[in-house]
Amino acid sequence: MDVDSNLVSYVYAFDHKHRRPPMEYKDLLGGKGANLAEMTSVLKLPVPPGFTISTDACRAYMKGGWPAELDAEIAQQVFALEKKMGRKLGDPFDPLLVSVRSGAKFSMPGMMDTVLNLGLNDESVKGLASVTDDERFAYDSYRRFIAMYGRIVMGVDGELFDHPLEAAKAKAGVTTDSDLGAKALKDLCKQYQAVIKKATKTAFPQKPREQLRGAVEAVFASWNGARAIAYRVRERISHELGTAVNVQAMVFGNRDDNSGTGVGFTRNAATGENKPYGDFLINAQGEDVVAGIRNTEDLDHMKLHFPVIHKELMEIFDRLERHYKDMCDTEFTIEQGTLYMLQTRVGKRTGAAALKMAVDMTKGTGKGNQRWKISKEEAIMRVTGDHLDQVLHPQFAGKGKVLAKGLAASPGAAVGKVYFTADDADEAATRGEKVILVRNETSPEDVHGMMVSEGILTARGGLVSHAAVVARGWGTPAIVGAEAVKIEGKQFTVGDVVVKEGDIISLDGSSGEVVLGEMKLAAAEPPAEFNVVLKWADQVRKGKLAVRANADTGEDATNARELGAEGIGLCRTEHMFLAPDRLPVVREMILANTDADERKALDELGRVQQIDFEEILEAMDGLPVTVRLLDPPLHEFLPSVEELHIKRAVSGLSKRETAELKAAEEWAEHNPMIGTRGVRLGVVKPGLYAMQVKALLKAAAALRKKGKNPIVEVMIPLTVTREELALARSWVQTEVDAATKGLKNPPHITIGTMIETPRAAIRADEIAEEADFFSFGTNDLTQMTFGFSRDDVESRMMPAYLEQGLLKRNPFETIDVGGVGELVKMGAAGGRSVKKNLKLGVCGEHGGDPESIQLFYEAGLDYVSCSPFRVPIARLAAAQAVIGGATSSTK
Amino acid sequence: MDVDSNLVSYVYAFDHKHRRPPMEYKDLLGGKGANLAEMTSVLKLPVPPGFTISTDACRAYMKGGWPAELDAEIAQQVFALEKKMGRKLGDPFDPLLVSVRSGAKFSMPGMMDTVLNLGLNDESVKGLASVTDDERFAYDSYRRFIAMYGRIVMGVDGELFDHPLEAAKAKAGVTTDSDLGAKALKDLCKQYQAVIKKATKTAFPQKPREQLRGAVEAVFASWNGARAIAYRVRERISHELGTAVNVQAMVFGNRDDNSGTGVGFTRNAATGENKPYGDFLINAQGEDVVAGIRNTEDLDHMKLHFPVIHKELMEIFDRLERHYKDMCDTEFTIEQGTLYMLQTRVGKRTGAAALKMAVDMTKGTGKGNQRWKISKEEAIMRVTGDHLDQVLHPQFAGKGKVLAKGLAASPGAAVGKVYFTADDADEAATRGEKVILVRNETSPEDVHGMMVSEGILTARGGLVSHAAVVARGWGTPAIVGAEAVKIEGKQFTVGDVVVKEGDIISLDGSSGEVVLGEMKLAAAEPPAEFNVVLKWADQVRKGKLAVRANADTGEDATNARELGAEGIGLCRTEHMFLAPDRLPVVREMILANTDADERKALDELGRVQQIDFEEILEAMDGLPVTVRLLDPPLHEFLPSVEELHIKRAVSGLSKRETAELKAAEEWAEHNPMIGTRGVRLGVVKPGLYAMQVKALLKAAAALRKKGKNPIVEVMIPLTVTREELALARSWVQTEVDAATKGLKNPPHITIGTMIETPRAAIRADEIAEEADFFSFGTNDLTQMTFGFSRDDVESRMMPAYLEQGLLKRNPFETIDVGGVGELVKMGAAGGRSVKKNLKLGVCGEHGGDPESIQLFYEAGLDYVSCSPFRVPIARLAAAQAVIGGATSSTK
Repeated sequence: MDVDSNLVSYVYAFDHKHRRPPMEYKDLLGGKGANLAEMTSVLKLPVPPGFTISTDACRAYMKGGWPAELDAEIAQQVFALEKKMGRKLGDPFDPLLVSVRSGAKFSMPGMMDTVLNLGLNDESVKGLASVTDDERFAYDSYRRFIAMYGRIVMGVDGELFDHPLEAAKAKAGVTTDSDLGAKALKDLCKQYQAVIKKATKTAFPQKPREQLRGAVEAVFASWNGARAIAYRVRERISHELGTAVNVQAMVFGNRDDNSGTGVGFTRNAATGENKPYGDFLINAQGEDVVAGIRNTEDLDHMKLHFPVIHKELMEIFDRLERHYKDMCDTEFTIEQGTLYMLQTRVGKRTGAAALKMAVDMTKGTGKGNQRWKISKEEAIMRVTGDHLDQVLHPQFAGKGKVLAKGLAASPGAAVGKVYFTADDADEAATRGEKVILVRNETSPEDVHGMMVSEGILTARGGLVSHAAVVARGWGTPAIVGAEAVKIEGKQFTVGDVVVKEGDIISLDGSSGEVVLGEMKLAAAEPPAEFNVVLKWADQVRKGKLAVRANADTGEDATNARELGAEGIGLCRTEHMFLAPDRLPVVREMILANTDADERKALDELGRVQQIDFEEILEAMDGLPVTVRLLDPPLHEFLPSVEELHIKRAVSGLSKRETAELKAAEEWAEHNPMIGTRGVRLGVVKPGLYAMQVKALLKAAAALRKKGKNPIVEVMIPLTVTREELALARSWVQTEVDAATKGLKNPPHITIGTMIETPRAAIRADEIAEEADFFSFGTNDLTQMTFGFSRDDVESRMMPAYLEQGLLKRNPFETIDVGGVGELVKMGAAGGRSVKKNLKLGVCGEHGGDPESIQLFYEAGLDYVSCSPFRVPIARLAAAQAVIGGATSSTK
Repeated sequence: MDVDSNLVSYVYAFDHKHRRPPMEYKDLLGGKGANLAEMTSVLKLPVPPGFTISTDACRAYMKGGWPAELDAEIAQQVFALEKKMGRKLGDPFDPLLVSVRSGAKFSMPGMMDTVLNLGLNDESVKGLASVTDDERFAYDSYRRFIAMYGRIVMGVDGELFDHPLEAAKAKAGVTTDSDLGAKALKDLCKQYQAVIKKATKTAFPQKPREQLRGAVEAVFASWNGARAIAYRVRERISHELGTAVNVQAMVFGNRDDNSGTGVGFTRNAATGENKPYGDFLINAQGEDVVAGIRNTEDLDHMKLHFPVIHKELMEIFDRLERHYKDMCDTEFTIEQGTLYMLQTRVGKRTGAAALKMAVDMTKGTGKGNQRWKISKEEAIMRVTGDHLDQVLHPQFAGKGKVLAKGLAASPGAAVGKVYFTADDADEAATRGEKVILVRNETSPEDVHGMMVSEGILTARGGLVSHAAVVARGWGTPAIVGAEAVKIEGKQFTVGDVVVKEGDIISLDGSSGEVVLGEMKLAAAEPPAEFNVVLKWADQVRKGKLAVRANADTGEDATNARELGAEGIGLCRTEHMFLAPDRLPVVREMILANTDADERKALDELGRVQQIDFEEILEAMDGLPVTVRLLDPPLHEFLPSVEELHIKRAVSGLSKRETAELKAAEEWAEHNPMIGTRGVRLGVVKPGLYAMQVKALLKAAAALRKKGKNPIVEVMIPLTVTREELALARSWVQTEVDAATKGLKNPPHITIGTMIETPRAAIRADEIAEEADFFSFGTNDLTQMTFGFSRDDVESRMMPAYLEQGLLKRNPFETIDVGGVGELVKMGAAGGRSVKKNLKLGVCGEHGGDPESIQLFYEAGLDYVSCSPFRVPIARLAAAQAVIGGATSSTK
């Protein structure tokens, strides 16, 4: 810990002169204390004065109890504070009141938070009443302080204070606290003190110094409270750190009409316009602004009433922006003509504002030597994936009452009438209605209904369920796994609420919220700065981390290319099999009894698959397209065993159905996710992969004839051993050799594999011997590394796990750095140890997640691939990873 | 390569003087060549002379074609050989014949194997006929040689030789080759030569030197045959090694009555008795002994006819045993009064013989300076797990016709009448019948039928299916996943064979073979040496690698302890839940609508579980018992969703059934193996684990009262994060604190976790912070590392994978060293990096597999745990690992 060596104090005033900027002393002062000191001593803002009792004091306390020298130091600081404020703690005429707040290095729920109005007692309350000329306010403050102090510092059960309050309200014949008069409140102050006496056998301390010591000790003690410890365990924060305590003079914006309070932004947080913006109330307290009890005024209005203070505030805004080089969000109070800054921080903003501000700030602001600007790299770092999501997808304009919450499966908001079957949805859409399709789960048979829907809601399934994957691919808003939604026939219920067919609901696929009724939507409208920032991002990441898309159709591929994709990292061929006109042929192939029948079905599939491939390769002309050979278990293409069993029991089966049942039973699996799929299918049904490769090569040849430049990469899924990949590679190579025999300039077809089993990652060195490239399939890798079947655990277990801190992030959204991330790094390093230039990519969902992209960059991957609508976010995140990676070495 | 530096030959006679024992020149001479040289030059055995063309020659050939100097070297060696034998290659009166055999460093299928009788041609065949006085023999040998040479050396399709042969038999009116006379065979020789001429446009070479060069070149070329290459890829053998070629004079035991042939063992391979044993035939060839066409005589009989040679043979036997310090298996031939040793190697033996010989040999054999013995460590290394299995379980006495093959799920052989339902099996057993239960799969409802069966056969499922696990626990022979077995009602078919209820079949659970009809069984009878060897093994591994058992009942625990288990490494509590009298209570618990109902069911379960625990802890008094809290998904305790759906469609459901259906649907999962199970259950149903721990602690307390010493270890299954284990640990600790509050000497209850997900192994460092011990669950770890659902892939995919060399071993039987083994090592090292003395064990199936135990010892584990009946094998293997580990550093 780097403390000024000539100082051995336990307590530092906010204006103490540290050797380096206070924000660097978070270890000693805690986060809040460092921020208050920064505002006071560096920014020279008019902050209500106060002092910070350091974490050193807390550590000393934990070791050996209350440090002997601490009382004196606090007394000295209080004395200085009283002097500064011209008021004294406990003064019966014009008392100084202080707040006491905990403030550890890291913000930490579970610790004592705040005691306000400390310094009030039976005498000083009268002074407060008199100087504020508001007896009710003074006694309300006092009874709140007693209760707060009793509960937090003295450990009295909070409920014990409720009984006298309820009794007082009953007696007064009112229902809300605010209707109680000064007399009743004064009475409550007495009763509350009696409650404390009874519960603790100790009197509520009347001496402010005693109150202060009690509050500080309570903060220290709360460091080792059960919830705080649990939180630290979870967040891996050392128990040794300790917390600081901040004591600060209270100021009141509601003293008179020469007082007031407000919040202000240095620029417009909604639009990004370079003009300060804020809300202000005369003669009011901070919570009045937030609560919206009175109509607030804007800053121009404030200028009318407080022209000098307004000017002062505007100068502060300039100073803040110059200091933080960013838009700031502030809270301020005017007490009897004096401006106090209570808080400042870099402000939150909308997506459009973030983009506009980032670009604006690169151009420079301010004059002369006060001019400042940010670099393009800094601008890139100012924009988040969520910002881009906001401008790319419609959003709820405002907040609605949330009926149910599910998994945010595909971003954007949608409004429509509820329908429960694909056919009903289809018909309604044909009638011109806007439709929300609600299903327990979706399957390929629902696709025609999903296609016409504004949004999709399912009661079951996780973020890789059919509904989620399909919706994301189309950019349709979707919520999945909303378990509270119970569908019964043509209605659904959530608790007591019944939603019938044709009722209107609104979905927010970015938050997972379902709202009953029609929400107003804010349309998606990327501002001009969108492309500016992404162009800068592309420049930064060029040659370092490419972005591709996962796309299965020509349309998706075209879309992805428009959004900036530099190729296709994952073309799933199974989606081509699931199209309604192809499924019967796929079934023929599976049911085939003779080689000839199988051949015939395969030929037919090859014919249609070739057309698909041509469209995709044409859309991605000149860019690489990674085609994954068939991956899912074959039973996914067969009818349900259970439905056939039921039908057999009820009405018997046709001959064809009997054959289908036999095949479905034969291919049924207990755990299909880890069953006969991927390259294992190729081993048990070798003709399948040969057909796919043939179709792909024919498509490429046809395009080449048209003068196009298709770049084909063939990818084998689910490899676990080198031998397996060598065998699969030989099948592909045989087709390639046959297709390119005799060509003068044979096309270079590369053959690689998914790395999606833990074993493949661990033995990447061996597997690399047979691979031209690796693509990490982090979805499956996460499933197997954790033993989490997404479809089963994501909607059922994940919420409980996240809530209880058993997992910090949903590992299917953001890569699990410690586990799955290690495997990715192991796989990348293993592969490269054998082939220095092995091409590495990722094609799981994580390919579009900014935090995960950081890890992929660190692991040395060449590209990430994500769904088309995530491409802009991935481009941005890739650039951020490159910039972060460049600076992380100098940190 | 360490070759005598003064030698640069390509060819070495068997009696060449190498600087070191020939067995050390396998790189140069190949395995076979080194063995022949060892017998010739070190053991001075009368081996038919010959020479080895070295791998150097092969490498030179691969590089630049036939080496110029090779012809001369071979000619020189042939000359020497002819001189030694007193016969010449191709001599028309008394020709020398030779065999040509490939012999790489490692035995390698897919390469050219053997050409016999080389040197025969149209002239020398007459000489052979004359000296053997057997024209038929001479021409039969010649036509076989022509065909063999044509096929192997000249690449003629073997079928082309079948047509003339069939025609010759038809013409002669005979059905077998051996009924063809000399005339017909002589004719065939001509026709075969015509076949070769037609197919290759080249004449069959008449010159022996040409024949020899052709054969040698064919051996060289076969090194790069497709199958040989594929084999080397699979076995990771370098393509650079090349093969040697052995050319050896042929000897004939069928020249006259002063000739003969036999096989001999230096001790009795069946009983282990220290007395040479063998089969012998006068005037016969090797294959006559093997084929059993004539009744063979024993060695005593040989002594009568060939007293001098018998004495010579006995001296050779002594020399062999002294040299190899082991029982040897030999092949020998007497040609006209001269003994030739054709082969010798350490001999295969039965389990009983292995044990007896190992113990006997530690006592010393031979006299004076010829006396030799082996150490106890060597004795331990001489016995294999298969040997112990043989003496522990009944075996087929002889070979039967195999009807079907499945997975060898539980060792030992059984015979009985086939029944298809548990009830039928139960009734039949009550009638006194010996029963084999045949099912598609078994479930807890079948347990009463399984219990009374001699053996169990299932058509589906893998080595951890219900049937397999239960059968192994009881030591009941079982075969699972016999996919060829198609059950229809009360019969099953395999191809055309129909087996009806009551028909007798025999099972060999050690090989997975199902035999129609009654096989004679050899009873399990461990010889006295069994315990001697295991006691030695225990001494060796003491303090280095302990052996525990997986046991779920008091009976199993008692059994395990008798077999030498030093504790229980895995007590699965779910089996206690599946007992027919408990399942309804478990269902009550799952169906409970109120906390009170759930509480009631849990209390009832706690009561019965306590009794179970008492029995187990009592049986293991003073030894550690690791109790795993509930692991399987709850739907395993509920009726099948599908069956209830069918019932609902057909006849409707009762109220109770409707409730059960609702629960079953709620708990149903797509991939239960990676779904809501293990500690995840604890998170979603916390009362469950508390109940189990309470019951366990009560049981321990009750025993302590009785003066016993229960040692309890509580194990949390399926952990993936430190936080998860911290939470689960807190539940257990709460119960422990409550149960031991106020005790003077509170028992020390340790709390640990399974490491069975890849993530847990990777993040073992973090998880170790919350664990007193780790137990590697290598079954699940293998499933997740490969993404192999055992129930799905083991019977369907594994055979194809093993056959095609995509996997070298079934990773569920022997641990996958490169993948899963790496994770075990990572987990062990990670855990110990945080807790130096962290106790480490393994409780997957691999705990009883000798090769896997070697890895566990290397990884630093403290114990292995396996099913009770594997305990003796694990004790032996653990000692072997310790011995191997000790010597591996000096290798």
